[in-house]
Amino acid sequence: MLNFDFHNPTRLVFGQGTIKNLGKYIEEYGDKKVLLLYGKGSIFKNGVYEEVVNSLKEYGIEYVEMDGVKPNPVLSKVIETVDLMKREKVDAIVAVGGGSVLDTSKISAAAYYYEGNPWDFYEGKVYPEKALPIYGVLTISATGSEMNSGGVITNEEEKKKWGWGSKYTYPRLSIVDPSVQKSLPRNQTVNGAVDTLTHVFEAYFGGTSGTLMQDEFSEGIVRTTMASVKVLLENPEDYEARANLAWAATLALNGLNGLGRRGDWASHSIEHSVSAYYDIAHGEGLSIVMPAWMKYVYKNDVEKFARFGEKIFGIVKEDKEEQALAAIEAYKEFLRSIGAPVSLSERNIGEEHLKEMAENAVLRGPLGSLKKLQAEDVFEIYKLAL
Amino acid sequence: MLNFDFHNPTRLVFGQGTIKNLGKYIEEYGDKKVLLLYGKGSIFKNGVYEEVVNSLKEYGIEYVEMDGVKPNPVLSKVIETVDLMKREKVDAIVAVGGGSVLDTSKISAAAYYYEGNPWDFYEGKVYPEKALPIYGVLTISATGSEMNSGGVITNEEEKKKWGWGSKYTYPRLSIVDPSVQKSLPRNQTVNGAVDTLTHVFEAYFGGTSGTLMQDEFSEGIVRTTMASVKVLLENPEDYEARANLAWAATLALNGLNGLGRRGDWASHSIEHSVSAYYDIAHGEGLSIVMPAWMKYVYKNDVEKFARFGEKIFGIVKEDKEEQALAAIEAYKEFLRSIGAPVSLSERNIGEEHLKEMAENAVLRGPLGSLKKLQAEDVFEIYKLAL
Repeated sequence: MLNFDFHNPTRLVFGQGTIKNLGKYIEEYGDKKVLLLYGKGSIFKNGVYEEVVNSLKEYGIEYVEMDGVKPNPVLSKVIETVDLMKREKVDAIVAVGGGSVLDTSKISAAAYYYEGNPWDFYEGKVYPEKALPIYGVLTISATGSEMNSGGVITNEEEKKKWGWGSKYTYPRLSIVDPSVQKSLPRNQTVNGAVDTLTHVFEAYFGGTSGTLMQDEFSEGIVRTTMASVKVLLENPEDYEARANLAWAATLALNGLNGLGRRGDWASHSIEHSVSAYYDIAHGEGLSIVMPAWMKYVYKNDVEKFARFGEKIFGIVKEDKEEQALAAIEAYKEFLRSIGAPVSLSERNIGEEHLKEMAENAVLRGPLGSLKKLQAEDVFEIYKLAL
Repeated sequence: MLNFDFHNPTRLVFGQGTIKNLGKYIEEYGDKKVLLLYGKGSIFKNGVYEEVVNSLKEYGIEYVEMDGVKPNPVLSKVIETVDLMKREKVDAIVAVGGGSVLDTSKISAAAYYYEGNPWDFYEGKVYPEKALPIYGVLTISATGSEMNSGGVITNEEEKKKWGWGSKYTYPRLSIVDPSVQKSLPRNQTVNGAVDTLTHVFEAYFGGTSGTLMQDEFSEGIVRTTMASVKVLLENPEDYEARANLAWAATLALNGLNGLGRRGDWASHSIEHSVSAYYDIAHGEGLSIVMPAWMKYVYKNDVEKFARFGEKIFGIVKEDKEEQALAAIEAYKEFLRSIGAPVSLSERNIGEEHLKEMAENAVLRGPLGSLKKLQAEDVFEIYKLAL
């Protein structure tokens, strides 16, 4: 186990009927005027917009609105958001939506105090010294962004989809009401579950030993996620399954799962390059990329992949390498069973840009820790995923 | 799953060689003069005192000392501590030790701003509005006090051993260096492990359903704790086992394990009454009391006790009640195997005060949530534990 330094100051309010208290919390923390940031309108269908706005009005919180944050959120939207915030001199951001809205809120909260291009934070040219407070209202569980400091933004012009965060960009408070996720389309529930699983795997397969407590924690999240998504595909309205899936998603990336481990994170970069080139959901991209990554790297930690097989799928074989390979197959089979794609061709992606995408994926240097990956390795992984 | 509101602001610095940075952290947070609070001298033997004091000196942090905090810490010591702090006008407390020192620091930090008897907080006569910052340096993993807001103090005169906490009494920062625990006496390692297990069980067996994620989390802590303590009884110097046991102990009571659940906590109150009457370690008391409690209440949730048997001990029987009973026996057997007591008589406690102790245990009302316990129930549990 590696040494670690953990500090997650986000307050998480979780459960049915909790959104109506949003205004009360904001009032208690003393903020008067907020930017209300959201996406493309699903919050009008599931009733969350109304609940949020009613609560803000009830507690006399003034708000200005910015809508239109896209999945795979983009830099141009961040710039537009920051401009509005500066003109309107808001005290805080209320981010209502999923990972894309939360992620947009984080860079915007920091860029509020910066005069240059927000992308400078992503390039490491500048570091924040403060950020506006963020209040999150989550409408889809997937990225864990409601309880961590990070966010992924796509710079469309430069085709860069990168992550960034700072200790100032943890939401002050996030509300997770799993019941509002009952109306999610099937594929979004599935993508969220895959994203959660992948977050766990990025830490779990990072090649650090002596982490029994973390491994148990990871495996618990994985089993919970798999069981809950199966229930929800049968009955999308099952509250307990929604709640367990939501809590699993938050735990998968609120920092705990990565403690004492190096983490790998190659698969995320490999996927980001896919969704920078093609309009594909992050969860779908991960579903395609991760099993291919597993196949390419498992020899660097056969024991861990074998353990994965036993603890998640009950696979025990005399030959540990066979057990590891069977585990990877079982994971692919699980993905198929929930209707998630496991190959690029299922999303009509061919060999056309693979070389370019591989070069793009390693722009910030070689990827991963279990096995260091150069562009040619990433290219091989893309080919395995065809 | 019940709704919850989680906010744990403690920063946790974990790992080998981390204590030497204590002074740097205190300096960064801007505190100049601290109370150095510790116990009965084990920190002189394991080198922690020297490390702490050297770090304070290196960063120019002034300190005054208060030693002599006992296991099962007492109110008179709290009063003495608060008096010293007021005379010396300190900015913060540095609590070096285990749960007893951390627990003493919490009530002292709040009582610093109060003129009356600190026990008033425990009686609910007064509520804090602030508290001094606390820096923890942990020397034994057991109570989770390094990353939660609570503390248990014994009012010797009134024979009350009660818990209390507030949102102001989370340590600002705690350092957990598992390597300093290598020199712990065998029985203290065992008691710490039992305390950890019991914290998990208090939430796990509370009778709340729909908590798959939490159950998985609990079971992971239990398996990690059991495996790690077994390794340490063979080789007390095994760093990875120390680290896993330490992290498990923190996770067992930093709030996460209880989220979305009612929690039971009867066993803790039943034990507190034992150690208010007899000089017995908290972990020993829990080791004796909890299996007796399990036997007395399991019928109220046969399914959960049966699950416990399967997930922890691999026990599967056709009759779920038999499975539940076998699980309780297996747990007792585990306790025996690590040298923990499972009966009052092993600690020379007879029937003499049992009635009185049972009355004492319910002074603040009936106990538990899985089964509401009155004094006569507690008396029966004590008799089962004889």
